[in-house]
Amino acid sequence: MKIGIYGYGNLGRGVEDAVKRNPDMDLAAVFTRRNPDSLKIETENVPVVSTDDIMAWKDKIDVMIICGGSATDLPEMTPSLAEHFNVVDSYDNHSSIPVHFANVDKKAKEASTTALISCGWDPGMFSLNRLYACAVLPDGSDYTFWGKGVSQGHSDAIRRIEGVVDARQYTVPVEEAMERIRNGETPELTAREKHKRECYVVAEDGADKDRIRDEIVNMPAYFAPYDTTVTFITMEEMKEKHSELPHGGSVIRTGKTGKDDCHSQVIEYKLTLDSNPEFTGSVLAAYARAVYRMSEKGDFGCKSVFDIAPAELSLQTRDELLAHML
Amino acid sequence: MKIGIYGYGNLGRGVEDAVKRNPDMDLAAVFTRRNPDSLKIETENVPVVSTDDIMAWKDKIDVMIICGGSATDLPEMTPSLAEHFNVVDSYDNHSSIPVHFANVDKKAKEASTTALISCGWDPGMFSLNRLYACAVLPDGSDYTFWGKGVSQGHSDAIRRIEGVVDARQYTVPVEEAMERIRNGETPELTAREKHKRECYVVAEDGADKDRIRDEIVNMPAYFAPYDTTVTFITMEEMKEKHSELPHGGSVIRTGKTGKDDCHSQVIEYKLTLDSNPEFTGSVLAAYARAVYRMSEKGDFGCKSVFDIAPAELSLQTRDELLAHML
Repeated sequence: MKIGIYGYGNLGRGVEDAVKRNPDMDLAAVFTRRNPDSLKIETENVPVVSTDDIMAWKDKIDVMIICGGSATDLPEMTPSLAEHFNVVDSYDNHSSIPVHFANVDKKAKEASTTALISCGWDPGMFSLNRLYACAVLPDGSDYTFWGKGVSQGHSDAIRRIEGVVDARQYTVPVEEAMERIRNGETPELTAREKHKRECYVVAEDGADKDRIRDEIVNMPAYFAPYDTTVTFITMEEMKEKHSELPHGGSVIRTGKTGKDDCHSQVIEYKLTLDSNPEFTGSVLAAYARAVYRMSEKGDFGCKSVFDIAPAELSLQTRDELLAHML
Repeated sequence: MKIGIYGYGNLGRGVEDAVKRNPDMDLAAVFTRRNPDSLKIETENVPVVSTDDIMAWKDKIDVMIICGGSATDLPEMTPSLAEHFNVVDSYDNHSSIPVHFANVDKKAKEASTTALISCGWDPGMFSLNRLYACAVLPDGSDYTFWGKGVSQGHSDAIRRIEGVVDARQYTVPVEEAMERIRNGETPELTAREKHKRECYVVAEDGADKDRIRDEIVNMPAYFAPYDTTVTFITMEEMKEKHSELPHGGSVIRTGKTGKDDCHSQVIEYKLTLDSNPEFTGSVLAAYARAVYRMSEKGDFGCKSVFDIAPAELSLQTRDELLAHML
């Protein structure tokens, strides 16, 4: 199947890497709002095309994987592209998912295309595991822990402070809390009891580091509700030790079964990712396969990962899956 | 929906407990090949019915959950019951799944019923996680570890040795191997490097314990390929410390992404179960909901967990799932 990548930042490059690793997929083109000549991609002999010229590609792309940001890009891009293409996006603004879904669904149904929104790992693989675990253990409690990993949003928030040149924020799960839950306990936990925040900051020469530290640790919502550490480092150290984008986390559900709730059952789904954008890109590529197959079957409209049978993601045939994977 | 339980051993009791915990399910009847009067079930005001009288229940059961054994019961029971009922089974003889599937599919399609085979945790939830992880990380390696948990098959094998009164065998994963894989390594591992076997044995008075130990550790396939420990205990200790049926395990996939495979990505799905049959029963009950819904939509024939969209398992509506679970 022929894949288009719309937007070429970290996520777009992650999708490009994933497409190479899936033998049934070819990258047809990368679309960019920038000057196409300014962009050098990793795949040889694949054109970089201005988004202005996208309509010429209407019949040459089986699935368009949209790699824009959730804040402002995707709410516009995904409905608009669903008018002409099968699409996959990674919209992650949880509270606005129903509205985004409805907007995309309307366009996809009118155009007879298949769209999948909010794919990736959270929302995405974590959501799937929340659903499966909750269905299997109706009497239980859910916990999601993130990290250790880089939060782009929190890093950006620090960079906006006066006197900060660069910053990297790691979200770190509190191991003691995870261990309690893995042992079958079902505590009520505050934000502070679940996650710590570790900040690495490059300050301008002569900047007041105490003021910067205070502004960080007292920032409402972002840092105030957590135990936050701030470490000032040089730009060299930032580049050397903090240039990667690792992430991960765990979805844990503990449930009770048996007479008088005598038995604890614990389900944990854990991701340990060296590269967040490459893993997210890998999930988007796998789901692009499913979107293509559903579109071929005439199953149009907007979907979530909850609507897609697992077999649709696999390179293997149904017979192979029964014989070797089940 | 009205659930029937066919067979009332450990698994049947596990399903009964799960049905109680799902507010949209009612237990309609328990069917047994034994004398119904000899059976006392946990749910009040629910009849225990002889399997001879099952046809009287043809229109009173929405889904029949079949709780027989894989060796001889299910290959007969599931196709035969699929002629009259929507059914779910936990057939776990991996190598014979394609044949069982074909047999059940034929009967279910002829009768316009919906059947799900090989549900539970392995096959079942573990299979799902193998499929998802493999689709997301095509360049990678899969590992399944079982335990710590009681293997009924291995316990039975010990009980067949002369001089053995009772036995319990725990399958124990080798933690060092799991840690290597969690750290992104992809070793080739022998059976011995993945699992250990711990046996607790009650011997007859005067039995030759050295001979029993030798017979166990040298038993082909069951114990010879593993590091096996044998501990002789009293019947009192067996009852006191080994009467539960815990189990669990991990499905781990490590994959590579990025330029020159520079990044490792690790996905782990881990179960820690106080009660194997109650957890398996919980999975069967959740999938019974999906089978009922598929049957109501006219989606007949045999299915595997791979064919069922996650949303079909959930008590929540599609709108609720989008708003709160995704």
